[in-house]
Amino acid sequence: MTHRYDIEGLKSRIDGIKTEDNPALVRQKSRDFFWYSPTLKRQLENVTGDILVSPASESEVLRVLAAAYELGIPVTPRGTGTGNYGQAMPLSGGVVLDMSGMDKVKEIGPGRLVAEPGAMLAKIDRQTRPHSGQELRLFPSTYATASLGGFIAGGSGGVGSIRWGGLRDAGNVLSLKVATMEASPRVLTLTGDDLHKVAHAYGTNGIITEVSVPLAPAYTWVDVIVGFDTLAAAAAYANALGEQDGLLLKELAVIAAPVPHDVFLRHQKFLPREKHIAVAMVAEHALDATLAFTRRFAGAEVLFRQDVMSPEELRGLPPAFELAWNHTTLRALRIDPSITYLQTLYPFPNQLDLVEKTRERFGDEVMAHLEFVRFDGKITCFGLPLVRFTSEERLDEIIRIHEDMGVPVFNPHRYTLEEGGMKQTDAVQLAFKREADPRGLLNPGKMIAWENPDYDYTSGKTYLFPGLADRAA
Amino acid sequence: MTHRYDIEGLKSRIDGIKTEDNPALVRQKSRDFFWYSPTLKRQLENVTGDILVSPASESEVLRVLAAAYELGIPVTPRGTGTGNYGQAMPLSGGVVLDMSGMDKVKEIGPGRLVAEPGAMLAKIDRQTRPHSGQELRLFPSTYATASLGGFIAGGSGGVGSIRWGGLRDAGNVLSLKVATMEASPRVLTLTGDDLHKVAHAYGTNGIITEVSVPLAPAYTWVDVIVGFDTLAAAAAYANALGEQDGLLLKELAVIAAPVPHDVFLRHQKFLPREKHIAVAMVAEHALDATLAFTRRFAGAEVLFRQDVMSPEELRGLPPAFELAWNHTTLRALRIDPSITYLQTLYPFPNQLDLVEKTRERFGDEVMAHLEFVRFDGKITCFGLPLVRFTSEERLDEIIRIHEDMGVPVFNPHRYTLEEGGMKQTDAVQLAFKREADPRGLLNPGKMIAWENPDYDYTSGKTYLFPGLADRAA
Ligand SMILES: Cc1cc2nc3c(=O)[nH]c(=O)nc-3n(C[C@H](O)[C@H](O)[C@H](O)COP(=O)(O)OP(=O)(O)OC[C@H]3O[C@@H](n4cnc5c(N)ncnc54)[C@H](O)[C@@H]3O)c2cc1C
Ligand SMILES: Cc1cc2nc3c(=O)[nH]c(=O)nc-3n(C[C@H](O)[C@H](O)[C@H](O)COP(=O)(O)OP(=O)(O)OC[C@H]3O[C@@H](n4cnc5c(N)ncnc54)[C@H](O)[C@@H]3O)c2cc1C
Repeated sequence: MTHRYDIEGLKSRIDGIKTEDNPALVRQKSRDFFWYSPTLKRQLENVTGDILVSPASESEVLRVLAAAYELGIPVTPRGTGTGNYGQAMPLSGGVVLDMSGMDKVKEIGPGRLVAEPGAMLAKIDRQTRPHSGQELRLFPSTYATASLGGFIAGGSGGVGSIRWGGLRDAGNVLSLKVATMEASPRVLTLTGDDLHKVAHAYGTNGIITEVSVPLAPAYTWVDVIVGFDTLAAAAAYANALGEQDGLLLKELAVIAAPVPHDVFLRHQKFLPREKHIAVAMVAEHALDATLAFTRRFAGAEVLFRQDVMSPEELRGLPPAFELAWNHTTLRALRIDPSITYLQTLYPFPNQLDLVEKTRERFGDEVMAHLEFVRFDGKITCFGLPLVRFTSEERLDEIIRIHEDMGVPVFNPHRYTLEEGGMKQTDAVQLAFKREADPRGLLNPGKMIAWENPDYDYTSGKTYLFPGLADRAA
Repeated sequence: MTHRYDIEGLKSRIDGIKTEDNPALVRQKSRDFFWYSPTLKRQLENVTGDILVSPASESEVLRVLAAAYELGIPVTPRGTGTGNYGQAMPLSGGVVLDMSGMDKVKEIGPGRLVAEPGAMLAKIDRQTRPHSGQELRLFPSTYATASLGGFIAGGSGGVGSIRWGGLRDAGNVLSLKVATMEASPRVLTLTGDDLHKVAHAYGTNGIITEVSVPLAPAYTWVDVIVGFDTLAAAAAYANALGEQDGLLLKELAVIAAPVPHDVFLRHQKFLPREKHIAVAMVAEHALDATLAFTRRFAGAEVLFRQDVMSPEELRGLPPAFELAWNHTTLRALRIDPSITYLQTLYPFPNQLDLVEKTRERFGDEVMAHLEFVRFDGKITCFGLPLVRFTSEERLDEIIRIHEDMGVPVFNPHRYTLEEGGMKQTDAVQLAFKREADPRGLLNPGKMIAWENPDYDYTSGKTYLFPGLADRAA
């Protein structure tokens, strides 16, 4: 096998650190859920790294980085590869830095956790719950398999965001240790506003080696599904429920009919096909008040209540949060591979109006899936609508129409930070990359501001990383 | 001593239950902090009950109610008498029902407490903290002395409302047991929306005999005071800080200069006279992020940080929440007895504008004190402005000007539910009074809807309870 990089030189320099270069295995660990997107599927199908390196400690991370720096080999960190925009895919090949072996919980305090980045979220909670009745504030619906470091570097929020806002919000990450990609890699400790340097930077400007996040009390959460005859009624209910400051919720989503019945197969018998639903996770002690609140809404029908069901009835049912966030998309894709999706924001205070306008505009082509969250102190909703895919052109057109209506889209069909995000340079992350990754070896191709500072986001084109073009060729 | 009521008959019927009829002692226990208001001070000065009855259990409460019902003797419940609108003052004399002896914590569960109504708030937390690291979500600044039942029957919110909203919000009270005033008193259990029947009803339609409320995690709270050159800057900072969903706060107030320096005597050396301040209680694990957030505000100066002070420096300093809510008023009154106050709401989304307009309109006559809270899912603020008192007429005029500006006033110079509240009949509470207190013996004179169904709230007059007129004569 020939390599673009001196992989043998690397191996000798990092002797004693676990590596894997069986191409099939490396390829497997070079992929994530990019195939969610027909566009990314086309673009990234052939991406693979040259070697998988699995450090067991921060000092091993530093050795790998120093060696790769010296040899000019790209390094792309990977948690557990559940991202869905190819975030962890090595567009220029090189090292896939598998962080999943660094998975120790180092400290649990009141309201606070310190852990290694590779720790899986569900495993963390399995330690914090018996320790002191605590759990993570926020997690993606990939809770069962995603890593803490991958969530912070590649995710944005999810379950818990109805109470705590998103990962970008002050206080939702307490501190990070970050290793730089230099001749002599340094470990920096970031706190406060400095966290923005590397949070949601796809590992393009540092390798997270330790994470501290706040913990919340671990209550028993009760899954509740409420049905409505119209999407507008379901959305209005969820919005009002979210605004109840005294009702402790962990999740609050709305999914338009007939999606729930058609794609939530295990819950199907509870979900009449014509019902639009609100899915909530409610703290046990808030259940009574939540049900009382629900009775104020004419037409609201409680379709599912976990608390009144027997263990037999519950067997095999996924938790409510696995009906939400991108798990809704996943379930829909499994039933109908021609389905794709978008990620939108319905800005406060017009969220309910915009949801309704979107429905009117697109009909069945775009099926509403709303995730209610706290956002800058108010309740509003993100959308992860399901889209009947016809062509990439039509998908782009649907995005443009959304944006023209005042509904920003975070395009999940792009692998770059900017195109999937705010469509502009993040000056803070770029400046930190200059400092922490001067040779541009970390996760190449993901930060347009680094690769092509003059890139014109208004061109209407999709950014194509030159390295990827080579590779795909 | 002669009584309007057959007190001797009562005593014989409730033999074995603790009573006190020494007039000086009864008078003392017939008063609360009504003297905060020059108006109430004039009206209520002579109010006293005829006998103090101190039940030790629910069954004793039922015996007292049955006996008083039979003899037609009014019963006015009392927690610990820290209300400040004469809520617990027996306008028609009769029994003062002292609930402070019923103070047991009955059950502590995850996120949930059951207690007797006379339990003092601070004492509850002294049990829940060591038990399971939990504490009350909400408490008034009279935390150290107020009772749980009195808070629910007479209060509205306070410390904790920046996170959880107010007592009126679904989920902030879980259930209440309430004894009715009938020939054979019943005990009803209220939950969900039925809680509104007796919550904040001043004990006019039932005696609360058991309370269940949610608990929150008991973190170490750090007092922080931040100074600003203008009120507008302090208010804008506090509003933005409150909107940080990831920063766990328990209290967030703004007080205009020169009040902090002039009335917070123990903190005076930290508070330059020209500084407008924001006072916050911040969870220890949110402190770092809060300070980082604060640095984003040009001109924000951290004047006080509890966490960096030695035990010696902290000795004798009251906790931050005793600089807030009506403790601000209390401290101002102690320095300058000509000060009085109002209770206002600056409705979202215009709160900052209205605060500024109020300042411009009144200058030094009305000194801003803002309490930031979550209210229907948004951050906004209540006001407890300090007012330089000149006459009752001018006070009424100041209220009218506020209301004309779009700032509703909950008049703290009135002893009735309606005048201190929404200035309209609460049909739910009235209906429940018809059911639970058919002879109108519970806390007479406080619910206008009962005493005078045709009362015209737009008359511009103050309601005068006829029974009180007799008594005062
Ligand atoms: C079904 C489904 C549902 C999802 N739901 C959500 C959701 O609710 N919310 C949400 O935010 N996301 C969601 N995602 C996306 C993803 O699962 C999460 O963001 C997850 O937390 C990623 O963690 P991971 O360990 O799999 O990261 P990976 O996919 O392995 O990596 C993510 C990014 O982080 C970088 N990275 C990983 N570890 C490090 C490190 N130690 N240092 C620096 N960079 C690092 C990688 O290079 C990559 O850019 C979902 C995805 C799927 C497929
Ligand atoms: C300095 C100061 C600060 C304050 N700050 C706040 C604040 O931040 N927030 C706030 O909400 N309030 C505040 N208050 C008002 C008051 O302190 C609180 O509402 C307190 O919780 C009342 O409790 P208590 O036990 O003293 O009640 P009391 O004053 O004894 O009674 C209050 C009302 O409840 C009724 N009641 C009492 N027990 C029962 C029962 N078992 N069943 C039925 N009815 C009953 C009484 O009849 C009365 O109408 C403040 C007052 C002062 C003086």
